[in-house]
Amino acid sequence: MASIDVCFSPELLHLYSLEGKAVVAVDILRATSTMVTAFAEGAANIFPVMELEECLSFAQRGCLTAAERNGIKAEGFDLGNSPFSYMDGAVKGRDIAITTTNGTRAIRLSEKADEIVIGAFLNLQTVADHLITLGLDVLVVCAGWKGQFNLEDTLFAGALVERLQKHFSYEYDSSLAALHLYQNSKANLVDYLRQSSHVRRLERLEIFKDIEFCLRHDAYNVLPVWRQDRLINLKVGELTN
Amino acid sequence: MASIDVCFSPELLHLYSLEGKAVVAVDILRATSTMVTAFAEGAANIFPVMELEECLSFAQRGCLTAAERNGIKAEGFDLGNSPFSYMDGAVKGRDIAITTTNGTRAIRLSEKADEIVIGAFLNLQTVADHLITLGLDVLVVCAGWKGQFNLEDTLFAGALVERLQKHFSYEYDSSLAALHLYQNSKANLVDYLRQSSHVRRLERLEIFKDIEFCLRHDAYNVLPVWRQDRLINLKVGELTN
Repeated sequence: MASIDVCFSPELLHLYSLEGKAVVAVDILRATSTMVTAFAEGAANIFPVMELEECLSFAQRGCLTAAERNGIKAEGFDLGNSPFSYMDGAVKGRDIAITTTNGTRAIRLSEKADEIVIGAFLNLQTVADHLITLGLDVLVVCAGWKGQFNLEDTLFAGALVERLQKHFSYEYDSSLAALHLYQNSKANLVDYLRQSSHVRRLERLEIFKDIEFCLRHDAYNVLPVWRQDRLINLKVGELTN
Repeated sequence: MASIDVCFSPELLHLYSLEGKAVVAVDILRATSTMVTAFAEGAANIFPVMELEECLSFAQRGCLTAAERNGIKAEGFDLGNSPFSYMDGAVKGRDIAITTTNGTRAIRLSEKADEIVIGAFLNLQTVADHLITLGLDVLVVCAGWKGQFNLEDTLFAGALVERLQKHFSYEYDSSLAALHLYQNSKANLVDYLRQSSHVRRLERLEIFKDIEFCLRHDAYNVLPVWRQDRLINLKVGELTN
């Protein structure tokens, strides 16, 4: 039986072997939630990059550019990091280059894995089904906040462990902790996360509707995966509920 | 109001500023539990060192030597890492040099802090009282298992947050996670931890009585703190319950 483990921060990734594994990269607030939304809205390719300058250079290749730093849209870019800014039809058929504080880093540091899947509550079941099909050992890589543990990514990891528990072993302490934290808060994730530092940081930025949206489970049948230098979508992005 | 934060691994310590803070170093299974026990049994000074060879060299200075690697007493040393091996009267008045897989590392990497306190369930309230008196921001440094998150150190951190919640702010996600994991498991910590990877590892080594002992709350009024190159005990080690 394959196993599911959880890495709470990209700063801990060096402790894990990625070869032969499927990584689920997660940054619930908001990078991976936004990428999933962009694909659901018909984006063609997404290029996650580390630096602002590199991201901006993708405009010359006909990409839309998206950047967030410290929770705010960076100046000079087409898009920020709010999923709602991807819903006006402008991303349909387009390529997007995106750089975010934490999420991009989690993806790029996981490149040695056999498969990298972009996970969010929005496409939770689609990710779970894909992992069951793959049958590889799974490592959930939480983006965290500037390298530190955060609750929202951990809760996603717990939700994924719950969905996979009949198919994967989950004996690692981080998997158990994530599962138990999720099970004790899932009845009202929004209220639970209002205690968290990053959510309070975002609330100050008046994007509470983003938070509520990013915590919706199974909104999209979207499966973004890493291929060579970009994310592509393996599923049609239909809204299922 | 001072704050309490939790660092889940020594590998994440570089993300924190230690200056002006009190660090609580914790390695419940078993380094810090054993150090607390050694002081309760009358040990004079404890020298935590990183390497086996350095530890052995302390014998020339009249120290007892103690070493554990991968959960087992290392060859050629006087003592291992089981608290029960410190209870036969042999450590009374003696200096001890000790090296362990994870705990020693957590202590030595925290040397920039204003104060380093050795925490265990065994001296939980004594540590809490000392931190209230100090009034510094607190960082609990979990030793983890080879750099990875573990449950038992996290549960101790949660217990400490619970004891300090009226006196310290605890808004960090790691503090909240630790508190909630503790509150949901404290009614039966031993059973809860039997799921954990390290506990199962130790159970295989037939040291279940160590685990039960290391989870006892408030057994000793012992306060080991770091001074220059060693741990000393600021309290008389009386058994209070």
